[in-house]
Amino acid sequence: MAAKLKVGILGATGMVGQNYIRLLAGHPWFEVTYLGASPNSAGKKFADAVAGRWHMHTPIPPNISGLIVADASKVDEVTGKCSLVFSAVEMDKQGILDLEGKYAEKGFVVVSNNSAYRLVDDIPVIIPEINEAHLTVIPAQQQKRGWKGFIVTKPNCSIQSYMIPLYALMKAGYVIDKVILTMLQAVSGAGYPGPASIDLIDNIVPYIGGEEEKSEVEPKKIFGKVDNGKIIPDDRIKISAHCNRVPVTDGHTACCSIQFAGKIPGMDEIIDIWRNFTSSPQELKLPSAPVPALVYADEVNRPQPQKDRDAGNGMAVTVGRLRKCNVFDYRFVGLHHNTVRGAAGGSILAAELLKAKGMIK
Amino acid sequence: MAAKLKVGILGATGMVGQNYIRLLAGHPWFEVTYLGASPNSAGKKFADAVAGRWHMHTPIPPNISGLIVADASKVDEVTGKCSLVFSAVEMDKQGILDLEGKYAEKGFVVVSNNSAYRLVDDIPVIIPEINEAHLTVIPAQQQKRGWKGFIVTKPNCSIQSYMIPLYALMKAGYVIDKVILTMLQAVSGAGYPGPASIDLIDNIVPYIGGEEEKSEVEPKKIFGKVDNGKIIPDDRIKISAHCNRVPVTDGHTACCSIQFAGKIPGMDEIIDIWRNFTSSPQELKLPSAPVPALVYADEVNRPQPQKDRDAGNGMAVTVGRLRKCNVFDYRFVGLHHNTVRGAAGGSILAAELLKAKGMIK
Amino acid sequence: MAAKLKVGILGATGMVGQNYIRLLAGHPWFEVTYLGASPNSAGKKFADAVAGRWHMHTPIPPNISGLIVADASKVDEVTGKCSLVFSAVEMDKQGILDLEGKYAEKGFVVVSNNSAYRLVDDIPVIIPEINEAHLTVIPAQQQKRGWKGFIVTKPNCSIQSYMIPLYALMKAGYVIDKVILTMLQAVSGAGYPGPASIDLIDNIVPYIGGEEEKSEVEPKKIFGKVDNGKIIPDDRIKISAHCNRVPVTDGHTACCSIQFAGKIPGMDEIIDIWRNFTSSPQELKLPSAPVPALVYADEVNRPQPQKDRDAGNGMAVTVGRLRKCNVFDYRFVGLHHNTVRGAAGGSILAAELLKAKGMIK
Amino acid sequence: MAAKLKVGILGATGMVGQNYIRLLAGHPWFEVTYLGASPNSAGKKFADAVAGRWHMHTPIPPNISGLIVADASKVDEVTGKCSLVFSAVEMDKQGILDLEGKYAEKGFVVVSNNSAYRLVDDIPVIIPEINEAHLTVIPAQQQKRGWKGFIVTKPNCSIQSYMIPLYALMKAGYVIDKVILTMLQAVSGAGYPGPASIDLIDNIVPYIGGEEEKSEVEPKKIFGKVDNGKIIPDDRIKISAHCNRVPVTDGHTACCSIQFAGKIPGMDEIIDIWRNFTSSPQELKLPSAPVPALVYADEVNRPQPQKDRDAGNGMAVTVGRLRKCNVFDYRFVGLHHNTVRGAAGGSILAAELLKAKGMIK
Repeated sequence: MAAKLKVGILGATGMVGQNYIRLLAGHPWFEVTYLGASPNSAGKKFADAVAGRWHMHTPIPPNISGLIVADASKVDEVTGKCSLVFSAVEMDKQGILDLEGKYAEKGFVVVSNNSAYRLVDDIPVIIPEINEAHLTVIPAQQQKRGWKGFIVTKPNCSIQSYMIPLYALMKAGYVIDKVILTMLQAVSGAGYPGPASIDLIDNIVPYIGGEEEKSEVEPKKIFGKVDNGKIIPDDRIKISAHCNRVPVTDGHTACCSIQFAGKIPGMDEIIDIWRNFTSSPQELKLPSAPVPALVYADEVNRPQPQKDRDAGNGMAVTVGRLRKCNVFDYRFVGLHHNTVRGAAGGSILAAELLKAKGMIK
Repeated sequence: MAAKLKVGILGATGMVGQNYIRLLAGHPWFEVTYLGASPNSAGKKFADAVAGRWHMHTPIPPNISGLIVADASKVDEVTGKCSLVFSAVEMDKQGILDLEGKYAEKGFVVVSNNSAYRLVDDIPVIIPEINEAHLTVIPAQQQKRGWKGFIVTKPNCSIQSYMIPLYALMKAGYVIDKVILTMLQAVSGAGYPGPASIDLIDNIVPYIGGEEEKSEVEPKKIFGKVDNGKIIPDDRIKISAHCNRVPVTDGHTACCSIQFAGKIPGMDEIIDIWRNFTSSPQELKLPSAPVPALVYADEVNRPQPQKDRDAGNGMAVTVGRLRKCNVFDYRFVGLHHNTVRGAAGGSILAAELLKAKGMIK
Repeated sequence: MAAKLKVGILGATGMVGQNYIRLLAGHPWFEVTYLGASPNSAGKKFADAVAGRWHMHTPIPPNISGLIVADASKVDEVTGKCSLVFSAVEMDKQGILDLEGKYAEKGFVVVSNNSAYRLVDDIPVIIPEINEAHLTVIPAQQQKRGWKGFIVTKPNCSIQSYMIPLYALMKAGYVIDKVILTMLQAVSGAGYPGPASIDLIDNIVPYIGGEEEKSEVEPKKIFGKVDNGKIIPDDRIKISAHCNRVPVTDGHTACCSIQFAGKIPGMDEIIDIWRNFTSSPQELKLPSAPVPALVYADEVNRPQPQKDRDAGNGMAVTVGRLRKCNVFDYRFVGLHHNTVRGAAGGSILAAELLKAKGMIK
Repeated sequence: MAAKLKVGILGATGMVGQNYIRLLAGHPWFEVTYLGASPNSAGKKFADAVAGRWHMHTPIPPNISGLIVADASKVDEVTGKCSLVFSAVEMDKQGILDLEGKYAEKGFVVVSNNSAYRLVDDIPVIIPEINEAHLTVIPAQQQKRGWKGFIVTKPNCSIQSYMIPLYALMKAGYVIDKVILTMLQAVSGAGYPGPASIDLIDNIVPYIGGEEEKSEVEPKKIFGKVDNGKIIPDDRIKISAHCNRVPVTDGHTACCSIQFAGKIPGMDEIIDIWRNFTSSPQELKLPSAPVPALVYADEVNRPQPQKDRDAGNGMAVTVGRLRKCNVFDYRFVGLHHNTVRGAAGGSILAAELLKAKGMIK
């Protein structure tokens, strides 16, 4: 058996960092060998650094508890400790641009959970089932910036439950023209502590700062084309998103109305397309790839966060309630696990894709 | 001071019936003098009939506790006891058609909470701020059916939070072409017991049987015109509704995207129209009429069920988050109290309108 | 009609301060004329100072919106603006001791929501129904400290639902020996933001820092006797409290087992004692005094926070489920509204008592 | 590898039956070969019989979907299909007594989830870690009743979180005299649909019919001794239980105060006893036995339902917050998963014990 690839986690003590640690426990390809965090945590054993604020429901993996947390800003000291870093640092935008850039410069592959680089035209925003082709911008990214390593990002956690179903239809040859959708988003999407409990008992909050913009803009880039070392967004698809915070721990639900341009598939055909959808992660048998990638629920009252978020170990998107729309062509409901498929799990799948394609040494 | 009008409640022991009793306590125009229910409850004092299942948060009004509940099906015995009945009976559709019809035949004014008669073309579905004009079909209704009394209904509880804001714009001269909306509906809308708690802890359910159809069809009738003793639905407006059940006790939230036909008002103009909207209930100073009818919330994260459902004693609709839509013209969020404005309170306001117009003796 | 007494609120922009403002709107005896807060808020209109963080469900009272917030630490500038201050400042213990002491020194009556002075032997911790007699230490307090004004405090918000029922039995001549109780406490007890929503969706947290100690120690002082200018705690009663945070917005529930020393009342007698309990606030007809002070619920599944917290406008304690205990003598469940009776409302009632007794000029 | 033991499920379509099916999927010793239910379901494939009401979060196991459901009352037809039946039928008490008795008469081993037989003196109520010795009454049970098979029951789901910690102390030689406890019970304990969501949003209900009695009486029997073919309850231990329903899906929390008779262990000793506790299920390496049986959580705010219910695959009890009690000797908080350890999982562990002891052929 080949040695595992050494990976690090930047922002290891935060909520997303903890999810990386949880999801990478026992990973067949990756081994966590470096934990970076703020100077406050540096020098402590991981278990001590997160004492009283380990938020996962399973214990700290035994091989992680005793690892000494490093100061993530001391990039020079990381050399040799790992090849790839998952970045979940919590800083202002410029701080993230600088820090992740330094890692890339020094030769690390950076898979980032942050939004800072997402709208930069030579940085891919990867959903592995959709836009593997965007990885072809990496050489241009490296050359332009003088980086020995490179950066890829994963998108905002609000979009996976509609992006993968929409892409499946696009891959089958249909063109989506318009999407109006309402998100019912779980509180874990806001990190810890996130929303106050008094605001989410017997209540919903019809606003999440910045989420609607991300839910509308990032899809255009992900559906875009690479041209001359740049990713050119696809501006033909028009998306309008209402984002609500609801009293749910995990699992984002999307109520979508969609309109096609040109040919309109039949209802049974759409369900067939979804049920048979497969893409690189499934074909390359990536360890975290859900099989199937899309679950179509026949029950009239599904998907539901409580019952469907763990489909495919939290990596599958569950779709249901496909029906005619009175205004557009069709309506449906999509659901994904926001902290798995929508965050750390999505990044790990992207890293697996990079590894499978030989892009990490 | 004139004597109060005597009113009865059919289905007085159920959840909606209890809401009527709560909201009519101390009403300046109406006095509850008759309580009808199933034979099981007949003959009992009201307090005994609902022992262990009085679901309101305030006590049974003292003048109601001791009233003897009657068998609602014995219509002959009701004569002289009241002039108007609020109907909240729980029966199959045919049972309701028969029972409410008998009351109308005998000369009672029936204001019904039920859906049975709603799509019949000579029966108005009244939102008092919107379609007072539909009351002009009553003479035709009486003549055709040989009724001495008549029936009006109130619409489904899911539509008020977008109907009143939309109507305000229509009244100002704008034409609404398309509406795509997602409802986040409170559990009290399902009566008692309603959804199981295990289905609504850490969960949302993206389906409510029959609600989407009602939310799409009833508005067309309410916006319709009277022609030759019939209400002709307005088929020009196209509405698509996604209805979800969320863990909220009271208060339905609507996330709406709207497209105009023809002229498009500016954002400030829309807010002005909403803030200045007034209609018959306000002009006639009906006791339950909210002033203002529409509240526009400036805060970016409002309306919220917990904070806004009680606006105008539960009779006002709160609107917020008006903003451009990427696909249609505008988006906004509306909210109303589903068991007050959306049910018993809406019926009481309709009855007040009938009284003010001299249609009840 | 006599002019109203001018009162100020220290910490007016915080959650408790907002509750004072809400509860004092339209108060027949008191008029809010001074709002003190931190230097950050000073100089702003109140409405601006709390923009985006007004947490009450009713709007800011019109006479308060435009009041200019002052820097609460500039005590000299408050002279003449009010006679009494309700203190809800958020500072460390020494900061509160200093600030409230300065107000008392300058001649203000201070009614404090804070715990800083609660265990000091010449400072009363007042539940107006129970220990009015402790006000007799005030002259000693003033003399010893050289204060022209004085300080009284209200107890922690976790104890009212058992203290008043227990005191009613003590007043009737029974001696309580032992109490073992479990509190199910609402999230509003923690202020804003309080617990994270992710910790209170599908969860309870069996720990609230400091609450168990307060719930056990403060009762002894409140049940104590005044001796030589000091309040001597009653150490005979032994109390053990388990404090849990539960997913409830407002309303603390106490599950109590009690053992008497000596004579044991019968079950019917206890209910009679509770139902007939009355004390100074009721006898003096204080504006906020609930009548009755104690509600005994006959229904087997009451009291419940959602249904009973607003009894007596949030000032009554609701008791239910009195039954034999297998280990002690009796068990019962008590409930009170933690932000009304347990916080701002309890302080206002204490201030009313001071006014009625002529202790404020 | 030996063939698996064939087992049946009575009441297979209900909530508890579904839990049996879920937990027995892939069981190393048992294979589900018979599904019994009411005549309504009989003759249908299991998947069809539960269409729209499969409440588990994982899909129906493939080998179960197509099994034809039988009429559980036709006991004669079950012969040869399985040796042991897990009974979760929903009937009145007499119906259960008759039906389970018939199965035992015909030679089946019956492991019952129902309370009907629990207080009968020759029927064991088994918590496998505690009272394996009660199985010695089986021969007397068979002889007295003329049964070829026999019945064992598992206790009510409310008691496991304190019974196992208490027993661990008793096994270490300490005598428990008094226990006062408050249960915070999850809604899944009430089956489906269980409590109405409107009663458990922003609320707790301080009453669950029959639970307090079961929580007080069943422990005495479980701690009892076998004498002359009968189980004699231990009346020395006195237990008082307050049972509340809280807005939690799964996981019952017990807040306990305990008093010893005689020698009192030290705090560290108690924690040691709990952490080192082991009993027959662990020693016999039963497939469902949690190792460790008891988890002691060091964090001050644990155990919590959301974070600790799945410890030991839902079979471990998590204990925490051991501290001095002001009234009794100690206090602690216990937690267990009510539908796993407290219901189907507890029964399966009991069946495993029977199998390991050679009591099932």
